[in-house]
Amino acid sequence: MAIKTAEQYRERVSKLSPRLFIGGKRVEKLTEHPIPRGVIEATARVYELTMDPRYEGFMTAPSHLTGDTISRALHIHQSKEDLFRRLDMARLSAQKLGTCNYRCPGNEMLPSVASTTWEIDHVKGTHYHDRFNDYMKWAQAEDLVVSGSVTDPRGDRSKRPLEQDPDSYIHVVEKRVDGIVVNGAKQHATGAYAADETLVLPGLSCRRGEEAYAVAFVIPNGTEGMTYIGQYNPYTAERECAEDIHSIGNPIYGQRETCLVVFDHVFVPWERVFMCGEVEFTQPLITRFAKTHRMNCGGACKVGFMDLILGAAQLMAEHNGLGKASHIVQKMTRMIQINQTSLACAMAAAQLGKEEPLGSGVFMPDESMSNIAKLNTNDGFWEVLALAGDIAGGIAVTMPSEEELRNPEIKDYVGKYLKGAAPAEKRMRIAKFLQNWVAGLHGVGTYQGSGPSQNQAMVLYRITDLEEKKRMAQELAEA
Amino acid sequence: MAIKTAEQYRERVSKLSPRLFIGGKRVEKLTEHPIPRGVIEATARVYELTMDPRYEGFMTAPSHLTGDTISRALHIHQSKEDLFRRLDMARLSAQKLGTCNYRCPGNEMLPSVASTTWEIDHVKGTHYHDRFNDYMKWAQAEDLVVSGSVTDPRGDRSKRPLEQDPDSYIHVVEKRVDGIVVNGAKQHATGAYAADETLVLPGLSCRRGEEAYAVAFVIPNGTEGMTYIGQYNPYTAERECAEDIHSIGNPIYGQRETCLVVFDHVFVPWERVFMCGEVEFTQPLITRFAKTHRMNCGGACKVGFMDLILGAAQLMAEHNGLGKASHIVQKMTRMIQINQTSLACAMAAAQLGKEEPLGSGVFMPDESMSNIAKLNTNDGFWEVLALAGDIAGGIAVTMPSEEELRNPEIKDYVGKYLKGAAPAEKRMRIAKFLQNWVAGLHGVGTYQGSGPSQNQAMVLYRITDLEEKKRMAQELAEA
Amino acid sequence: MAIKTAEQYRERVSKLSPRLFIGGKRVEKLTEHPIPRGVIEATARVYELTMDPRYEGFMTAPSHLTGDTISRALHIHQSKEDLFRRLDMARLSAQKLGTCNYRCPGNEMLPSVASTTWEIDHVKGTHYHDRFNDYMKWAQAEDLVVSGSVTDPRGDRSKRPLEQDPDSYIHVVEKRVDGIVVNGAKQHATGAYAADETLVLPGLSCRRGEEAYAVAFVIPNGTEGMTYIGQYNPYTAERECAEDIHSIGNPIYGQRETCLVVFDHVFVPWERVFMCGEVEFTQPLITRFAKTHRMNCGGACKVGFMDLILGAAQLMAEHNGLGKASHIVQKMTRMIQINQTSLACAMAAAQLGKEEPLGSGVFMPDESMSNIAKLNTNDGFWEVLALAGDIAGGIAVTMPSEEELRNPEIKDYVGKYLKGAAPAEKRMRIAKFLQNWVAGLHGVGTYQGSGPSQNQAMVLYRITDLEEKKRMAQELAEA
Amino acid sequence: MAIKTAEQYRERVSKLSPRLFIGGKRVEKLTEHPIPRGVIEATARVYELTMDPRYEGFMTAPSHLTGDTISRALHIHQSKEDLFRRLDMARLSAQKLGTCNYRCPGNEMLPSVASTTWEIDHVKGTHYHDRFNDYMKWAQAEDLVVSGSVTDPRGDRSKRPLEQDPDSYIHVVEKRVDGIVVNGAKQHATGAYAADETLVLPGLSCRRGEEAYAVAFVIPNGTEGMTYIGQYNPYTAERECAEDIHSIGNPIYGQRETCLVVFDHVFVPWERVFMCGEVEFTQPLITRFAKTHRMNCGGACKVGFMDLILGAAQLMAEHNGLGKASHIVQKMTRMIQINQTSLACAMAAAQLGKEEPLGSGVFMPDESMSNIAKLNTNDGFWEVLALAGDIAGGIAVTMPSEEELRNPEIKDYVGKYLKGAAPAEKRMRIAKFLQNWVAGLHGVGTYQGSGPSQNQAMVLYRITDLEEKKRMAQELAEA
Repeated sequence: MAIKTAEQYRERVSKLSPRLFIGGKRVEKLTEHPIPRGVIEATARVYELTMDPRYEGFMTAPSHLTGDTISRALHIHQSKEDLFRRLDMARLSAQKLGTCNYRCPGNEMLPSVASTTWEIDHVKGTHYHDRFNDYMKWAQAEDLVVSGSVTDPRGDRSKRPLEQDPDSYIHVVEKRVDGIVVNGAKQHATGAYAADETLVLPGLSCRRGEEAYAVAFVIPNGTEGMTYIGQYNPYTAERECAEDIHSIGNPIYGQRETCLVVFDHVFVPWERVFMCGEVEFTQPLITRFAKTHRMNCGGACKVGFMDLILGAAQLMAEHNGLGKASHIVQKMTRMIQINQTSLACAMAAAQLGKEEPLGSGVFMPDESMSNIAKLNTNDGFWEVLALAGDIAGGIAVTMPSEEELRNPEIKDYVGKYLKGAAPAEKRMRIAKFLQNWVAGLHGVGTYQGSGPSQNQAMVLYRITDLEEKKRMAQELAEA
Repeated sequence: MAIKTAEQYRERVSKLSPRLFIGGKRVEKLTEHPIPRGVIEATARVYELTMDPRYEGFMTAPSHLTGDTISRALHIHQSKEDLFRRLDMARLSAQKLGTCNYRCPGNEMLPSVASTTWEIDHVKGTHYHDRFNDYMKWAQAEDLVVSGSVTDPRGDRSKRPLEQDPDSYIHVVEKRVDGIVVNGAKQHATGAYAADETLVLPGLSCRRGEEAYAVAFVIPNGTEGMTYIGQYNPYTAERECAEDIHSIGNPIYGQRETCLVVFDHVFVPWERVFMCGEVEFTQPLITRFAKTHRMNCGGACKVGFMDLILGAAQLMAEHNGLGKASHIVQKMTRMIQINQTSLACAMAAAQLGKEEPLGSGVFMPDESMSNIAKLNTNDGFWEVLALAGDIAGGIAVTMPSEEELRNPEIKDYVGKYLKGAAPAEKRMRIAKFLQNWVAGLHGVGTYQGSGPSQNQAMVLYRITDLEEKKRMAQELAEA
Repeated sequence: MAIKTAEQYRERVSKLSPRLFIGGKRVEKLTEHPIPRGVIEATARVYELTMDPRYEGFMTAPSHLTGDTISRALHIHQSKEDLFRRLDMARLSAQKLGTCNYRCPGNEMLPSVASTTWEIDHVKGTHYHDRFNDYMKWAQAEDLVVSGSVTDPRGDRSKRPLEQDPDSYIHVVEKRVDGIVVNGAKQHATGAYAADETLVLPGLSCRRGEEAYAVAFVIPNGTEGMTYIGQYNPYTAERECAEDIHSIGNPIYGQRETCLVVFDHVFVPWERVFMCGEVEFTQPLITRFAKTHRMNCGGACKVGFMDLILGAAQLMAEHNGLGKASHIVQKMTRMIQINQTSLACAMAAAQLGKEEPLGSGVFMPDESMSNIAKLNTNDGFWEVLALAGDIAGGIAVTMPSEEELRNPEIKDYVGKYLKGAAPAEKRMRIAKFLQNWVAGLHGVGTYQGSGPSQNQAMVLYRITDLEEKKRMAQELAEA
Repeated sequence: MAIKTAEQYRERVSKLSPRLFIGGKRVEKLTEHPIPRGVIEATARVYELTMDPRYEGFMTAPSHLTGDTISRALHIHQSKEDLFRRLDMARLSAQKLGTCNYRCPGNEMLPSVASTTWEIDHVKGTHYHDRFNDYMKWAQAEDLVVSGSVTDPRGDRSKRPLEQDPDSYIHVVEKRVDGIVVNGAKQHATGAYAADETLVLPGLSCRRGEEAYAVAFVIPNGTEGMTYIGQYNPYTAERECAEDIHSIGNPIYGQRETCLVVFDHVFVPWERVFMCGEVEFTQPLITRFAKTHRMNCGGACKVGFMDLILGAAQLMAEHNGLGKASHIVQKMTRMIQINQTSLACAMAAAQLGKEEPLGSGVFMPDESMSNIAKLNTNDGFWEVLALAGDIAGGIAVTMPSEEELRNPEIKDYVGKYLKGAAPAEKRMRIAKFLQNWVAGLHGVGTYQGSGPSQNQAMVLYRITDLEEKKRMAQELAEA
């Protein structure tokens, strides 16, 4: 069984030394800084869940390359069943972590690379697919964390890459006998600095003349020329300041931590390059990733998050003595509806999944349903946040620090005046957990993950067969 | 193959003579009155579709009783696959008819009767299930239209049956050696007067003391004591007046036609009685019907209707010269999202379907997802109507009669001033078809079919495991 | 007092003989055809309300031209107070008629003509304003019904008038010494055939070269060359068929009845022409009408309609025995919120109203708020319809004819099975009244009246000062 | 002119020494701690705006007690005009501060105390109103900041005060000759520790037997027995950590800072007590405050915030090069609609305002419209946040610290990769400002301020005259 333990991951990560900056300062040791530590804890927990016999069959999968049992995070979907199990994995991780499962993003790119390298080779006689399979065999055997990066900084979005600073999108600046040299950056790279590897895909559908931008590759953590600049926001500050992390909203696993990854003349050997110049295949590559990601992100990961929010909102209502009040029941029912709807769309995407391209063996979810899973979640997640915010009440943002419960001068006041139908500590913990959602980063994160609503709307309109619906209407109307 | 032709159905129906009133008058001959004629045309069309080799496999199914190929309208779901195929049948029928497939409602009750008679017998040693199977073998062999009725008039909804006029709900008034005598009525009985048979289920979950109300049976069209009182509304009047039905919105198949079916001391022989007094099984019986119906009605039938509305709205925009305008694209995209979302929920209901009770062989969709399919459709269908109404514009309600196109005095004016980017007749036909939806009966019909929103909301809240979600949230919050 | 009685109006209208067609047939006598009769009854009722001392001060106003007390339907707004009173008039009429107050549309155009003729004269030295004032003095003295028409057929909406059939928009085909000759048509002309006069405004903002289309005038009912083609829809048929109109949803006043008014070489004398060729003033003229209309239509007329729907929905719930059920309370509360919100926007439009242009004496509502009143009503009205449809239940569309209550063969059944917590007749009347809304013409009518949502959205975006908001944000963000 | 300068306020506040804890530590000096400093800066800015001649007439008002020109923050509404000007004040403050105007909450309570003391005296012959007027004369002359507190901790919300820990609601524990002694606490007390005074109202409508809880009084900052426990959340931490506050979202004025104010046997002299035991007047007192607060909070304060969010969202879109993209225009239009709608409801509340009780001279806004202003804002504000979050994109939460722009090792990378159509610093500032909203405290704050949605919904339903609407519907339906 090619599955490593959380301890083995921790050991590997303890040896990494990426050039990482957070909040204006260099992070010398990943494992000693509270922010990367949250990423490492979350990742390690995923390794534990993978080992847990209760989750066998969806946290693991048989490798189609070797037959070995591997982590599903490194699996290439071979069937509809695989798509359904992928949803189970994403939802469970979200429920158990309350933040990003840092093995996810790469995992959603790998099938698109598998499918597209197969297709490029098929059409153009190249050998990307064998290269990719060799890479995958190794990565699966070592059970690596493969982080994924797709979003370029883009500068002025109204301009193509060559109409502005050429580094606004990652591109090849030199081709050598042994490999390529790339320049540019990727943003929103989730957990990249604590991953073994980073897989890089083009962030735009390239046109003729933009060959340098049609580049996909994978690179080890901390390769020369790479700099990681971590996100910094109020939640970063809170965690850095906390004397006891248990007073924080999601104490162990924290926020989804991303970074800007800069590639400054970074060398990538050919065996790690999976596309280089095939502009006509950037669109399929991106589209396949997008639909896989939108299914999981929209219809499973956020569903797991919403499970947590629903649970916390109900607890809060009960701690307030209002667990059965009719307006609470009504709001909870609406939240359940939203949550299940997102899940349903993802399930339909899996159910309508197909091998793509035929012969490749790689299964892709249905594009319409995966985009709809994400569209529904975009609005639905915010509505759930709003409903949970209403149920939680002001305490979710006006609450004093839990530290006050240990402040001898005032702890009695806090204990007395923060209690409800439950003791103050219990109630504050849930309020703090809810704060993490209703006044936190995940609302925007939901839009950002797999792209803004307009992208999904445009895809949806483009791929819908309105002609068929017109014919049906005409058949009846003009009878 | 136990499938009859449309002609065979027409012949059978031409011999029926139910005691039917529409608009204050007795209908003497079903086939000669424009309202029943629409019902008959729609039903006949379903027979045609069932014969059509293109739809083989979902308009037909193998009988689990005889192995014969039968109409899926008389099939008892034996697998998840059957639930998926049922969705295909419902959506296709809706697309092809633009109104009720009159074989549907009964079809959604039959599996619940199969499942519940099996269970009653299992628990109480009765023999309802054999009786039901005998009936089904005959009905399948004859390929009958089995209409279904479930909604009692209910009188004052705040009162139980025994607290008010006892006839407010159908009940047994006499038990004889050879059968039972029932009194009461069922409303919203869809197409009952043009069906071969009517299956009657209890409309409420009975309590001890209400044994007389726990009654299920099937009865032939026009049995003595039965009176059918047809719905009457503006669309009835329009069809009765029309010199040429082609000027009407859905010319051939018309509206969903329902009636109030009165049972005035009607005798039902024991071999047609499938429940009689087992109050504790009324809840399962109704619930199983409801979830099956909500899956189909919410997530397939109305999806087919929305397909038609989308097609017509796009045609209208094109006939106005605005097919590609950005606000039209945006509205169409929203409509597509709504439509696919309803479908996704129904698919998830099928995907999560299970045998119920274990051992019965009968498959039921997931209760949560089927209720959500209906809840989403309730609001979604109205939003689609509103969007289509906005795209259609005032012409959908202010349009002159198509007769004016044949009025020599003014036909040139009408041709000139009703044209758009398409000729007047073409544009008027689509506007008229849209009128049928955006100013028609289907908005309310969507709520009525399978019950008002509050029913679904209550079920949803009741069956959701909030305790599990609370535990998940606590695990993280109190870490 | 220059106010006429309902009887005087009836007498005038009995002498009218417009060339009118409904449902493919010529209407010989307005007062004897059930459709025009509804229009006449509604108009007569407005005359009665105007006479009613309870409504003095808002159904009447002092003429700014003569000082006489006139019907507010012919008043030119001279103050914010006038705008507020106009709202009172519109809401009361809607509440009392349940359909169009046929004196409204013209009334919303008159101030825009007053304002714009004043401005044209001011800028160009013409004499339209005096002409208009002379006309108004006469119309006020005679207390005429001045209907208004603005929407041209438009043909292919992607084309300007001169790029297609030139008659797609009304235009001058000949200028004579004594007047002009016009060709074209207006659609959705509300109640035009039973009005004394029809005021015609350009339906598009004209550009240079389109001078022939920049034409505004007023014309007496039935002028030679005019043909009226009435709308025809299921509600028309129902009314035509009804033996007793009391069995219809809104028995006395019926639907908003519109027609296509064709102008086939119609001569208009100069004293009735208020714009002729001043293309640069078509935009102000239309905009002023639009904002006045959107305030009233969105924020008062539909508010009155929603008052009726709310009342009927609550009655229906009570007749079902559910008047106090928590889900009914919740739905009613939402409906109240929607209704009051629309009203609030109209009130804000009045409150922010201003003289426009300065010096003209004519008051116009705020453009942003009036457009928002309409935008909110567009969606809100449909949501109210949906909620009312859910409360009403299936009976709103599946109910038998009230005639059945007089059918000796089955009246006992109907009485028994249609009753609720109220007798059948009472309950059926309310259900029928609700049918008129939830399965009727008013949903689409709400969009059509004062234009589709996209118009209002475009205006709103265009007139909002985003630069100011940007400056505010920058002041804080870049502090 | 009884208006003090910002400097005079700063001097007063520098002398205050409330017993204040934030984040587990005692705050020794208000002016030296970054959190109170934000409150002081915001309050000082309000003093500046009050002095600004551009805002004369709405930031100031003539005292009805002395005729002096006073800050409107201490004015008792004497007319509808005052209500309108109050809206202007609230909106301007919100636009200029991007956070709470800490003089607001007290200001919304003062008129309710004026009105209710007048009424109590009138009915019961007490002398609260004179007392209150004496207090007001002094507070106006000194131009004090009067903070307001109303929300008790409430413990188990399903229980009345006497059914649980009696301190869950503030109450009188001793009546002395010279005054009363109170126990309890108030939560969500906005800016109380930097205000001169705190006005305390009962937080529930009291019943007979709960006389001790029917207590209203005003108390100077830092009175013996008072302890202030400040809120602590990620934004607190960020501000505490910041080397340069200009890198924070709303740099100068920060978050709305609240605290839990504990009253541990606090003595209040009689001249500062405005209600003591008159249980029957707690409901009017609270209701009057609630409607005033809901009008301002819902329809002006949040409108000012939304102005800022709209401006920032548009700037962000422009900095991304997408200022005119059609989906941005559509989202901005929707945001404008929401914003104006909230304002319209507040304006209608002012317009329908009345003296209450008659004779008191105090004007109150319309209760229905003020509750609707808040209800619309509740949902609307979250929708605006969601739309702004979608426009802002991931950068609003994944952005590195602005400190990185000053980090010599990587500032070039940050400058290069964070730029858009605008330089990195400009773009980051706006993104950071948006973060403050879309991932900040204001979403929940919007619900909390003036109470959760359910409160407003219940009031709205209760005060709406459904009987009148039923009569209107009946008049037409039963014609």
